[in-house]
Amino acid sequence: MKQVISAVCILCGAEHEAVPGITTCVKCGGILDVKYDYKYIKSVLTKEKVASRERTMWRYLELLPVEGRQDGLRKLSVGCSPIYNAPALAEVIGIRSLTIKDDGINPTSSLKDRASAMAVVKAAEAGLSTIACSSTGNAASSLAGNCAAAGFHSYIFVPERAPKGKVAQLMMFGAKVFLVKGNYEDTFRISAEAIDRYGWYNRNAAINPYLVEGKKTVSLEIAEQLEYKMPDYLAISVGDGCTIAGVWKGLKDLYEIGFIDKLPKLISVQSEGCCPINRAVNEKSAIRPMEENTFADSIAVGVPRNPDKAILAITESAGIAVNVSDEEIMAAMRLLGRTCGVFAEPAGAAGTAGVKKAVELKLIPSDASVVSVVTGNGLKDTANAIKAAGEPVSITPDMECLCKRLNEGAI
Amino acid sequence: MKQVISAVCILCGAEHEAVPGITTCVKCGGILDVKYDYKYIKSVLTKEKVASRERTMWRYLELLPVEGRQDGLRKLSVGCSPIYNAPALAEVIGIRSLTIKDDGINPTSSLKDRASAMAVVKAAEAGLSTIACSSTGNAASSLAGNCAAAGFHSYIFVPERAPKGKVAQLMMFGAKVFLVKGNYEDTFRISAEAIDRYGWYNRNAAINPYLVEGKKTVSLEIAEQLEYKMPDYLAISVGDGCTIAGVWKGLKDLYEIGFIDKLPKLISVQSEGCCPINRAVNEKSAIRPMEENTFADSIAVGVPRNPDKAILAITESAGIAVNVSDEEIMAAMRLLGRTCGVFAEPAGAAGTAGVKKAVELKLIPSDASVVSVVTGNGLKDTANAIKAAGEPVSITPDMECLCKRLNEGAI
Repeated sequence: MKQVISAVCILCGAEHEAVPGITTCVKCGGILDVKYDYKYIKSVLTKEKVASRERTMWRYLELLPVEGRQDGLRKLSVGCSPIYNAPALAEVIGIRSLTIKDDGINPTSSLKDRASAMAVVKAAEAGLSTIACSSTGNAASSLAGNCAAAGFHSYIFVPERAPKGKVAQLMMFGAKVFLVKGNYEDTFRISAEAIDRYGWYNRNAAINPYLVEGKKTVSLEIAEQLEYKMPDYLAISVGDGCTIAGVWKGLKDLYEIGFIDKLPKLISVQSEGCCPINRAVNEKSAIRPMEENTFADSIAVGVPRNPDKAILAITESAGIAVNVSDEEIMAAMRLLGRTCGVFAEPAGAAGTAGVKKAVELKLIPSDASVVSVVTGNGLKDTANAIKAAGEPVSITPDMECLCKRLNEGAI
Repeated sequence: MKQVISAVCILCGAEHEAVPGITTCVKCGGILDVKYDYKYIKSVLTKEKVASRERTMWRYLELLPVEGRQDGLRKLSVGCSPIYNAPALAEVIGIRSLTIKDDGINPTSSLKDRASAMAVVKAAEAGLSTIACSSTGNAASSLAGNCAAAGFHSYIFVPERAPKGKVAQLMMFGAKVFLVKGNYEDTFRISAEAIDRYGWYNRNAAINPYLVEGKKTVSLEIAEQLEYKMPDYLAISVGDGCTIAGVWKGLKDLYEIGFIDKLPKLISVQSEGCCPINRAVNEKSAIRPMEENTFADSIAVGVPRNPDKAILAITESAGIAVNVSDEEIMAAMRLLGRTCGVFAEPAGAAGTAGVKKAVELKLIPSDASVVSVVTGNGLKDTANAIKAAGEPVSITPDMECLCKRLNEGAI
């Protein structure tokens, strides 16, 4: 990999050779970060070259830590999800410009496909064809889908609270699924032990430094779709911390190679009921565990596994950390649906809820431009969607009943 | 519209001016079909021009019955869904070549977005901004989503059996939803009466001749994605009959303008429990109503509203009509998930179940090439997905329990 120099520990700075199987720092246990040779990348990659390529996340090949094209493994069409200018929603929220990146439009309907597609390629480079992870749901279903498409096996650990939609995907993709009686922390721990014992490839994003590199492609795409004119802020929901770390890595990559000349500030959005990363940012304190009190299952992570990279991303960007209630998330789900035609799962709408909250709290100016990433499709969790959106009006099939309900204002 | 000549009744041949508000033939009540000036289209459209355009269904502008670009109304990014070569699945099924077009990857997760996006544009041309339809679910949710994005209103009638996922979408998109206590036929009838009374724009695909023109873009895309080398067969599930009619229209369009030199034969797939169109084709008889005895809700249409166009499409293509059981559909769901990483709703997998059945019955030769269209995402109906795929294995979060379950062969 000419484009990759090494994998650097973000805690102690130790450099490791970027071989496919690396996980955390052998010296201090810190999380590794892939270090690129931007000078080389600048010499081989142009915006025009990117524009001419296949419509998947692999169009940014020179910015990814992979050996070569490996087309045989890139089965699912991950990435290049739509982006929408959302003036009606911007008006409701009271902000000059709002753009929605709908990453629920991916093969398994979440942003996590970007990391899982990368996991398949890196596992193959490591000579393995069985991949395992623990997940609140989306990482799991994306891993299962990407493994199925590539002919790989997957072992998946999900907490028992995982929504039906996500579990249905796992089972349909033929994953070997363990529903763990416990919270995300319990689930993560047992997956780590099992991966150690059985030698599976590790697709836990906080442990495997390559997965953040897959996730960062969402930023590369946003930049390209906005013709490299970056917004003032970029909002994203935060659970484990890996996604916001990926978002920031992508932005910095583009800045380093001169594709963009401005770095947006990050808006880190967590749930009030589970916000250990935002609390650490706002209180400038160490991470302490929290309960997982939110219906937004994808970001209900009481003991985040990648707080260091996430906190670094938020602070480096001079960003803000804002918490939202479940009611505010439900309101954002309705707003996204009714003004944009975008159906987001709770965690997927949390970013947009955070933008609204940040405007209300005057944490960001009303003349700002913001991109908000929807990280997962609302179909993943229809029970909570119905809770947020309400039930339909029942009628018998006759005009009398219909007119009566209309006149009553039932609808 | 230079490209459109008229709207021709497929029963009596009467030509109507192709104004935006037309529905059925004023002379005989027959369904209309948009007639194009292929000579003109040939003179203005090239494959290169198509290739250079935006990645949505509107890239085929000259083949669509719209006045102009109307960018303001084309809010959602409909179309350009992925296509996958599926050698592993082809092997299981016992066919030389199988390609899966995953149209569940659309803004509201079904092929119906193609018709609903068209409905919004045609309603605007007709000077209306409220659109109504009856639907087994997907037409409804796509209409609701596309209306929300364009700032239009939608009134939707769904039968009470509609799956939760689809109803959740409707409510989230802010549609005014009537859950009709009755079957699809009852639902269709009450919607037609209400549309008449209230003057809403009619998005019932069998009544509105423009919607099939939206649906046909799936064929245009398949052809382009296969570099205009067409397969021997194209399989699709059939309910009302509009989608297969659209598929055939698109193929004929491309043939007429010389983009393809071969027309695939259609494989019309219905459920054994509800197959009025296939019965009429196979028995060369008139359409007779049937019960709606299938879990594949999207194709459970006992009284199809567009049998004429559908039957014409199947017979013109020298195609075949094959019925599948619910068990065969569930098996196809598992096969698509486990060999392709594609998660299909029951009706979405029916096409592929039909290919398998057609091979087994030797209705198509094993050296044939087939494209099968997945019409909707499995997340639309997770209850049935779980039924088809099974439940996960529960464990307590300790290695002892995990190893025990693994050794037991529980997984």
